[in-house]
Amino acid sequence: MQRRLVIVGGDAAGMSAAAQARRSSKPETLEIVAFERGTHTSYAACGLPYLVGGFVTAADKLVARSPEEHRARGIDVRTRHEVIAIDPGASTVTVRDLDGGVERSERWDALLIATGAEGVMPRWPGVDAAGVFQLRTLDHAAMVEARIAAGARRGVVVGAGYIGIEVAEGLLARGLSVTVVERLDAPMGTVLDADMSGAIAESMRAAGVDLRLGVSVEGFEADGGEVCAVRTGAGTIPADLVIVGLGVRPNVAVARTAGIRIGDAGGIVVDERLRTSLPNVWAAGDCVESRHRISGASVVVALGTHANKQGRAAGTVIAGGEASFPGVLGTAITRFRDLEIARTGLGEREAAAAGFAAYATLTEASSRAHYFPGAQSMRIKLVAERGSGRLLGAQIVGGAGSGKRIDVLATALWNRMTVQEIGEMDLSYAPPFSPVWDPVLLAAGRAAASR
Amino acid sequence: MQRRLVIVGGDAAGMSAAAQARRSSKPETLEIVAFERGTHTSYAACGLPYLVGGFVTAADKLVARSPEEHRARGIDVRTRHEVIAIDPGASTVTVRDLDGGVERSERWDALLIATGAEGVMPRWPGVDAAGVFQLRTLDHAAMVEARIAAGARRGVVVGAGYIGIEVAEGLLARGLSVTVVERLDAPMGTVLDADMSGAIAESMRAAGVDLRLGVSVEGFEADGGEVCAVRTGAGTIPADLVIVGLGVRPNVAVARTAGIRIGDAGGIVVDERLRTSLPNVWAAGDCVESRHRISGASVVVALGTHANKQGRAAGTVIAGGEASFPGVLGTAITRFRDLEIARTGLGEREAAAAGFAAYATLTEASSRAHYFPGAQSMRIKLVAERGSGRLLGAQIVGGAGSGKRIDVLATALWNRMTVQEIGEMDLSYAPPFSPVWDPVLLAAGRAAASR
Repeated sequence: MQRRLVIVGGDAAGMSAAAQARRSSKPETLEIVAFERGTHTSYAACGLPYLVGGFVTAADKLVARSPEEHRARGIDVRTRHEVIAIDPGASTVTVRDLDGGVERSERWDALLIATGAEGVMPRWPGVDAAGVFQLRTLDHAAMVEARIAAGARRGVVVGAGYIGIEVAEGLLARGLSVTVVERLDAPMGTVLDADMSGAIAESMRAAGVDLRLGVSVEGFEADGGEVCAVRTGAGTIPADLVIVGLGVRPNVAVARTAGIRIGDAGGIVVDERLRTSLPNVWAAGDCVESRHRISGASVVVALGTHANKQGRAAGTVIAGGEASFPGVLGTAITRFRDLEIARTGLGEREAAAAGFAAYATLTEASSRAHYFPGAQSMRIKLVAERGSGRLLGAQIVGGAGSGKRIDVLATALWNRMTVQEIGEMDLSYAPPFSPVWDPVLLAAGRAAASR
Repeated sequence: MQRRLVIVGGDAAGMSAAAQARRSSKPETLEIVAFERGTHTSYAACGLPYLVGGFVTAADKLVARSPEEHRARGIDVRTRHEVIAIDPGASTVTVRDLDGGVERSERWDALLIATGAEGVMPRWPGVDAAGVFQLRTLDHAAMVEARIAAGARRGVVVGAGYIGIEVAEGLLARGLSVTVVERLDAPMGTVLDADMSGAIAESMRAAGVDLRLGVSVEGFEADGGEVCAVRTGAGTIPADLVIVGLGVRPNVAVARTAGIRIGDAGGIVVDERLRTSLPNVWAAGDCVESRHRISGASVVVALGTHANKQGRAAGTVIAGGEASFPGVLGTAITRFRDLEIARTGLGEREAAAAGFAAYATLTEASSRAHYFPGAQSMRIKLVAERGSGRLLGAQIVGGAGSGKRIDVLATALWNRMTVQEIGEMDLSYAPPFSPVWDPVLLAAGRAAASR
């Protein structure tokens, strides 16, 4: 008998699940239908700032797989179709065709909710003025592009988190003047501890960004419906173009209404096998909560890596196989121009909040042998448990070659290593690649000595 | 009462031990004397190819700490002093002053042997001709430099291992024509499996190296005492300058004569605390054997990282503290121009030889999101245990950003992870740094699917 899998949302998690389920099940045994309210599937949202910046030269490069390609692989994708209700009792969803306006009921045997996240957009006065954007979709990127083409020269970015600093780099690269307004006292203030963010602020200012820290946006001014300024608690900033990057929150309205359990962090609660609180209903991607492997907390981390892994695991499970999603460490990386910024695990405050007796050490190190051309300095912060020396988290800010070293520390963290053990590891060394004590070893040795 | 630590050899291991022992013990309780037969201490031998290549602009940049600096820190370093005999019964060494020729007996309470390694140099006919060099010391580098300054234009490198390819890059950078003669069928043939070395040969040839594989050197021809050609089993190659890079073997003559146990791999046998078979005698660095953490074998791996770690541990132990050296994975990295080459653990043949039911997978991956400018391709080979999927080794060859990923796999290997577990890890992702599935995750997933 043929089962029917309905997927709500056709981006990373949804389509990874679809592809994996398709690989595992023949069309005769499993029909797969995915509803996507937008016009694209499987695109790299994380590439959008680089599309705006002109580093990525065409929007379609960000599309990993088009609806047509999915269809050719036996997945019935219907774009511009929005699932507006789930009826768990009847095992149906109500789907609206956004072009025709028609609503239809579609039955499912298995349902995967992959509704993603939506950008946080406060209802500031004037927020609907033309030229005030988020950057969450290819359509947003096209609107920003059009505005630059139409002569926008003064860009204001609201928020100095991941999206904020990436967009600031992009707008600078396009020749705009850029002001970044951040409510906190430091860029990346929710990502890094305060003693790690100084170099980012310096680098942004050195690149010409007018970085306004500790400043809150109060609204926007428009002229003929077009944004012309950002009003803040510390004055008004002229603007032809505003991009708001204040992070995201899970899209859970439809799931909530259907009675699916939502967690304290605002995401759909799933178990390791991506099952929701309702039978035969799974969820994956930016809309779910994941277990943080160090704090044990249930957290929302909207990141393509997790969406892909969760989608793949959900697809396997739905098709009858064995798979699970083992949780997150909160590993992340970005850059501002040449400055690389990365973290994993818990920051110092987060570790204390999670109940650890934590301490932290800062280490300055070089990406290469000090005598080798191109050696870049970096700062590594390790957070560890006092006494045991168990690693709890790490942060890196530095030049080329520094950021990806976070993966070594993430791997150590995954394995619950102590800083003493990390300092003894056999990591690679040659003068163009590291000093004889790799920065990771150096930082771990420092932390081990301080425990 | 003051103890006396005598150190034989004033390079990485010896002087790391001295510095660590000095940090742990006051001069009143521990006198530290180091004898070094050369004129330098603590220099970065691994930087020599880059000094020859002109990437490092002055020889003294390679000296981490001079004899004077060590003396200023309370370590009595005596350069141009060679230890020619150890008398364990009397707890003395016989030291020859290489300038005066005088021999003296020096007593010790603790003895550390850090005699390093010497380059393998077959007794080929003509090998003593001027212009045939090894590249093991700053003096060697100065001789090569002098020869280039005197007009050498045709360089021949014997051996395509680490030193061989690094020196080939260096001589090319100096404008010499370069021929590399390698007995095996592939460059890096003792380092990588055959299916990983193709890109290296291609890259060397594309850069203009005349790479002669499967060719053995038979001797050298000289003209007026100056080398003018290399005779091989496949013809004669004109040469103004020859550098022989055939690896190293431990310097253990003095230790062996003293009755200290030497292992099957040719190095001094030490335990985890760097103790030799004789009481109060320690050894560290390139002259010792280390335990390979995957094969369990006792191996010689002459590398600055281990020398530094072993020296530091020996210094701690000798000063009465607790420390140990936990063994090696055989992690290593190098490059030929833009091509990065790295390995850790066991290769496919090595794993079979060590008794594992091993299998291997090859994965082609991109260093960045495929749409991001500068994305470089890489090839990752994983060797794992059939059934369990336990990782046994990894090799990476690829463009910028690929090589240092070996450290993630080395960390996984250190923790005895399976490829399934590795594929689930939370590694960092952003388009300038990796595809959404980092190459390491991709390779692990591939290996997990094949187990």
